[in-house]
Amino acid sequence: MTLDRRALLGGMTGAALLAPYFALEKAMAQTAGSHTNHPPAAGSPMLLYPGFTALDLVGPHYFFACLFGAKVHLVTTQSDLAPVASDLGLAISPTVTLDNTPADLDVLFFPGGTQGTMDVMRSDRTMAWVKDHASRAKHITSVCTGSMILGKAGLLKGKRATSHWATFPVLEDFGAIPTNQRVVKDGNILTGAGVSAGLDFAIALTEQLRGRDYAEALVLQAEYAPEPPIVAGSMAAASAPVGNMMGQMFAPVADQFRALAKS
Amino acid sequence: MTLDRRALLGGMTGAALLAPYFALEKAMAQTAGSHTNHPPAAGSPMLLYPGFTALDLVGPHYFFACLFGAKVHLVTTQSDLAPVASDLGLAISPTVTLDNTPADLDVLFFPGGTQGTMDVMRSDRTMAWVKDHASRAKHITSVCTGSMILGKAGLLKGKRATSHWATFPVLEDFGAIPTNQRVVKDGNILTGAGVSAGLDFAIALTEQLRGRDYAEALVLQAEYAPEPPIVAGSMAAASAPVGNMMGQMFAPVADQFRALAKS
Repeated sequence: MTLDRRALLGGMTGAALLAPYFALEKAMAQTAGSHTNHPPAAGSPMLLYPGFTALDLVGPHYFFACLFGAKVHLVTTQSDLAPVASDLGLAISPTVTLDNTPADLDVLFFPGGTQGTMDVMRSDRTMAWVKDHASRAKHITSVCTGSMILGKAGLLKGKRATSHWATFPVLEDFGAIPTNQRVVKDGNILTGAGVSAGLDFAIALTEQLRGRDYAEALVLQAEYAPEPPIVAGSMAAASAPVGNMMGQMFAPVADQFRALAKS
Repeated sequence: MTLDRRALLGGMTGAALLAPYFALEKAMAQTAGSHTNHPPAAGSPMLLYPGFTALDLVGPHYFFACLFGAKVHLVTTQSDLAPVASDLGLAISPTVTLDNTPADLDVLFFPGGTQGTMDVMRSDRTMAWVKDHASRAKHITSVCTGSMILGKAGLLKGKRATSHWATFPVLEDFGAIPTNQRVVKDGNILTGAGVSAGLDFAIALTEQLRGRDYAEALVLQAEYAPEPPIVAGSMAAASAPVGNMMGQMFAPVADQFRALAKS
């Protein structure tokens, strides 16, 4: 704990913002009993596709990008490196195309969406990429309806998994065992529930990869001590009028995903 | 509740993803006693600057972009519309430059960061924009160290406000009244705590702008029922070794922000 942390931070510039994580890693390595005996991380691809839900991806990205040595690849399904627009119009720049994704990979991640996610599931080219990379990934992961992509790739057969509440029952159509938890682990598959569950998912994964102390440090850095001003984040907690309306609104989306399980 | 919701959704394409919100708005308008008697929203600028923390912005963006009629402007401090890189290397495309921001505005929002945030505070040009737009905004808001920008603009004098835990005490240097809550409202100024507090902040603002039912629907859609796998999101909750290490790590950052309060 008497590191060159201050020296690192003293010279910190915008580009050197990751210095704290290097210091953190060093400190962790010096802490007896910490879980830092891991090999250097391979690349971790996160899939960017038109119509993805940005928050599904950016929550986990915060944690993935803070893992010392991790190389996060933002992989676009588009043919070039143009920014990829989310369902709500937020465009994020990819770092690599499907064809140029490095072969060696660690964590494979899929955000959710609605029509955009279905377009991924309908694309033979993208689904071939999903299956190929899943066969080599150490961890196969998703948040929200990203689990529909895993299902379509045949990765959830007989596996416990979760999804956004709207598509949770559809998991069964892909042969999965719908498991009503915020984050569900089955072997090397880790799935998170809808949208904001990406934070809980990423913390669980960070703990799995780097141990409790490291994960705890990132939780503190993200000041993740949620206090929802409105408790309505599940059908059980929502008021009946709002729950009914939203249930009706999303029913056609579930039907469309279900149809893709049959095709 | 017998709307043309299914018709809207039946024809839903990637580009028409916002249809549910139109249906939601209509449904809300038909619900007696709901708070939908609001004027069409003006534009809501969110500031993008090199080194911003992406999660500070993308959490609130999810809610802002789901407000019927809202026009979210992603305003870049750079001279052109090139993607703006976050502190962790996630680049988001802006929609407008400082000079071309529409004059009429509703919610003005600032995400946090570290060195990038300090660069904003050192820029006469950007700070002139902040002061000008704050003088006309209906709501002046921030998440994380975004409150340092508000402080530098002189907007927090005598006001209750919050910030990331690392810079929370620095609020006093700007004449603010540091208030240890997840989300703090003082007049038309709404500040959120660090990073992940952007979700709680945005829900509080949504309720303020559109009423309880509307906010509840978005909370359910985002499945915001957090279950942190590790409870360590505040100094009080973190273990002593992690808390001490992180406190030391961020102390120089607080010092640098404090110096900017004097300059």
